[in-house]
Amino acid sequence: MNISEIQEYINNNREELLNNLKDFLRIPSVSADSKHKKDVLKAAEKLSELLTELGANNVEIWEPEEEGHPTVFAEFFVSEELPTVLVYGHYDVQPPDPMELWDSPPFEPVVKDNKIYARGACDDKGQLFMHINAIKVLKNLYGKLPCNIKFVVEGEEEVGSKNLPVFIKKYKDKLKSDVILVSDTSMISLETPSISVSLRGITAFEIRLKGPDRDLHSGVYGGAVANPANVLANILAKLKDNNNRILIPGFYDDVRPIGPEEKENIAKIPFDIEEYKKSIGIKEVATEPGFSPLEATGLRPSLDVNGMVSGYTGEGGKTIIPSKAMAKISIRLVANQDPDDIINKTLNYIKEITPNSVEITIIGPEQGAPPFFTDTSKVEYKVAEEAIKTTLGKTPVKTYEGGSIPILSTMQKELETNVILLGFGLDSDAIHSPNEHFNLDNYYKGIETIIVYNLLFPKYFKNPSN
Amino acid sequence: MNISEIQEYINNNREELLNNLKDFLRIPSVSADSKHKKDVLKAAEKLSELLTELGANNVEIWEPEEEGHPTVFAEFFVSEELPTVLVYGHYDVQPPDPMELWDSPPFEPVVKDNKIYARGACDDKGQLFMHINAIKVLKNLYGKLPCNIKFVVEGEEEVGSKNLPVFIKKYKDKLKSDVILVSDTSMISLETPSISVSLRGITAFEIRLKGPDRDLHSGVYGGAVANPANVLANILAKLKDNNNRILIPGFYDDVRPIGPEEKENIAKIPFDIEEYKKSIGIKEVATEPGFSPLEATGLRPSLDVNGMVSGYTGEGGKTIIPSKAMAKISIRLVANQDPDDIINKTLNYIKEITPNSVEITIIGPEQGAPPFFTDTSKVEYKVAEEAIKTTLGKTPVKTYEGGSIPILSTMQKELETNVILLGFGLDSDAIHSPNEHFNLDNYYKGIETIIVYNLLFPKYFKNPSN
Repeated sequence: MNISEIQEYINNNREELLNNLKDFLRIPSVSADSKHKKDVLKAAEKLSELLTELGANNVEIWEPEEEGHPTVFAEFFVSEELPTVLVYGHYDVQPPDPMELWDSPPFEPVVKDNKIYARGACDDKGQLFMHINAIKVLKNLYGKLPCNIKFVVEGEEEVGSKNLPVFIKKYKDKLKSDVILVSDTSMISLETPSISVSLRGITAFEIRLKGPDRDLHSGVYGGAVANPANVLANILAKLKDNNNRILIPGFYDDVRPIGPEEKENIAKIPFDIEEYKKSIGIKEVATEPGFSPLEATGLRPSLDVNGMVSGYTGEGGKTIIPSKAMAKISIRLVANQDPDDIINKTLNYIKEITPNSVEITIIGPEQGAPPFFTDTSKVEYKVAEEAIKTTLGKTPVKTYEGGSIPILSTMQKELETNVILLGFGLDSDAIHSPNEHFNLDNYYKGIETIIVYNLLFPKYFKNPSN
Repeated sequence: MNISEIQEYINNNREELLNNLKDFLRIPSVSADSKHKKDVLKAAEKLSELLTELGANNVEIWEPEEEGHPTVFAEFFVSEELPTVLVYGHYDVQPPDPMELWDSPPFEPVVKDNKIYARGACDDKGQLFMHINAIKVLKNLYGKLPCNIKFVVEGEEEVGSKNLPVFIKKYKDKLKSDVILVSDTSMISLETPSISVSLRGITAFEIRLKGPDRDLHSGVYGGAVANPANVLANILAKLKDNNNRILIPGFYDDVRPIGPEEKENIAKIPFDIEEYKKSIGIKEVATEPGFSPLEATGLRPSLDVNGMVSGYTGEGGKTIIPSKAMAKISIRLVANQDPDDIINKTLNYIKEITPNSVEITIIGPEQGAPPFFTDTSKVEYKVAEEAIKTTLGKTPVKTYEGGSIPILSTMQKELETNVILLGFGLDSDAIHSPNEHFNLDNYYKGIETIIVYNLLFPKYFKNPSN
């Protein structure tokens, strides 16, 4: 492998390696908006065309049985002797609203200050095209690919990946691989490259309380009738204290303590607490005692009210006892918490502490997913470290993400294959917001790193002690 | 006093004693709706005409200095030797919405099943006209009034009585009297007549919490940042337990324990707990341990969240840490709690238990009013008992109301005069609702009782041992 040759090729073909992405960004494949149903389909078709042109032996568009958007599958087969990389990505994008906050139209990509601006520039069209263009470069440089490569690219990531788990089960054999590469997350920076090695799991539900069958006069009835808003507050207060310590019995039973290696890894992540507080406008953090913000958000569970409402919320006052009260709650899980176990403990506890003077209904759980983690002891991960070290000059720092990508746990579990989060986005890319963009240096370094990964993987795979 | 003569007169003139009310009900004097500004004024003018026709020596329309609706003042002066009754009432009405739920137009009074249906039929035009027609009957029967009678009738009761406190202070001398009669409440029934002898006071305020300066991703930040919704719940849970016991330090310091006489009075009130629960659709009451619902709502303080909101409250989920959280709270006060003292204790406590990780703002207090109670040991009250015993055959039961009428405390305090709540409405009259009505038996018995009151008052006033 001659890294200079690869770098020179990319450098000489920057325009060309961006033009196919630009064309793809022009398709407004907003999966959440039924008005764009045809555009989403158009993106799937365009993608399968591109992969066919690149020389895929087999390209399939998997249509969901019921409602939803299709998944594109492609296979670049080289040899039974070689290992297989499965690339997961998504071709759908978030809605662009609010439109008025965009400096340029979201579906007319423009390059400014060495960044490409468009909805999907980073999430995930830009990152997906790093893999597509890596194939292009490899083919042009060497005439053939160094390993087998498969693509599974869904069109429903932004709306909950409803059909992908079905396809994963149905096409388990087609999706067989030796590593799953996902470029749909971010790294700290090109100067401090990083790989997210874990994500928290999630479970979410809604509590609905019903008291009297209509809003009551708080004078006539106040003091004799349970107020669902007060009762809800009493329930919520028993779930978590002001230090983010969760009070549900048995909640921490299966939480794996943070180990010395994890503490060491976190210590390597640049973090300025004053900058952190300033960036979100708070005066004090509120972590569990004994944990730093990065530890608390990456390797400790959390529980948050996402929304609640009861009674009169307009201007001025209305002296009522509300008939109803509602709260939406999400819980983030860490290894080795099991979503089913946690939801059972939580809901049993909530029912236990709810007085008989109100009726309780629980909606959900929804969005359940176990915590996800990459097995960093395996060769697939070593190759990622090696590839980044080759292209960016530094061994990537390991980060522990607070968010959740439920589909990753499903893939890892169903396909029994290690997932590597080879993300090249930056936290500042404004994904899901107006003026989403992707740094072109990250884009081209991403292509380069993926090329190196594909080149190194077969060697390490054969001889893990490399 | 010959009660048969009075009853016979009323009986022979039922139509006439209803027609002036019907005409008055036709004026849509909706104080809350600026479209009806002229109608409100028309009602004030019509009322002053009527009082002038009845022979008032002096009728004045007090215009508010700034915005608002006028107050009508009238004086029927007989002699310096005689005591003076001041009648308080209001000529404005609640908006009639929702119109589609009315069986007949709200401003076209109709009599059906011995009830008169119209907006204001009971609240308060009907009850006010009991006093007007009492004067009419007294004049026709005896040629003159047995005592001095004054009227102060406002047009802003349904919108918060903003200007009346100003007029009360300004015209303290004109409003001088020996008793204030208010017919703007209800009694249990004609078979179980009652007088409300107390009302709870009120104070209300709003808590606003601010956490991060925008909604945050609950995955990325959950566990490190205080969630204003959770913090709000923790604050609210420290204000009241699930048994309606208020937890604010010192809150009960000035609460006068329920005395044996009060317990005895409450025992006389017909009350079926199963019927009570059924009527509001609850399975269990939630009173402070040791208190019945009537004791709890009448003679114990209460605290209720009237409304609260935070974060995402739409369909499905949105995994955020909300930036803000808000709750509106009202507190009902009983003797001898002082609204200023209670609000101080409450707000100091709330500030004390609010962690530094959120910013707190308190809006208000609003609607402050001390508890109100009639001095039932005084002759003014004995006369009311005697009058009801004369016309309805039973000594009225004393009731303790949970609601608040802030203007009554103001009047009692500023004018230093005992207020008697001589109400003839029924809880079933649908005031503030579609198909408001007033039972005609109550109306005529009200006129009769007020006549008797006016006849007895000078006698008892001269010789309280009567």
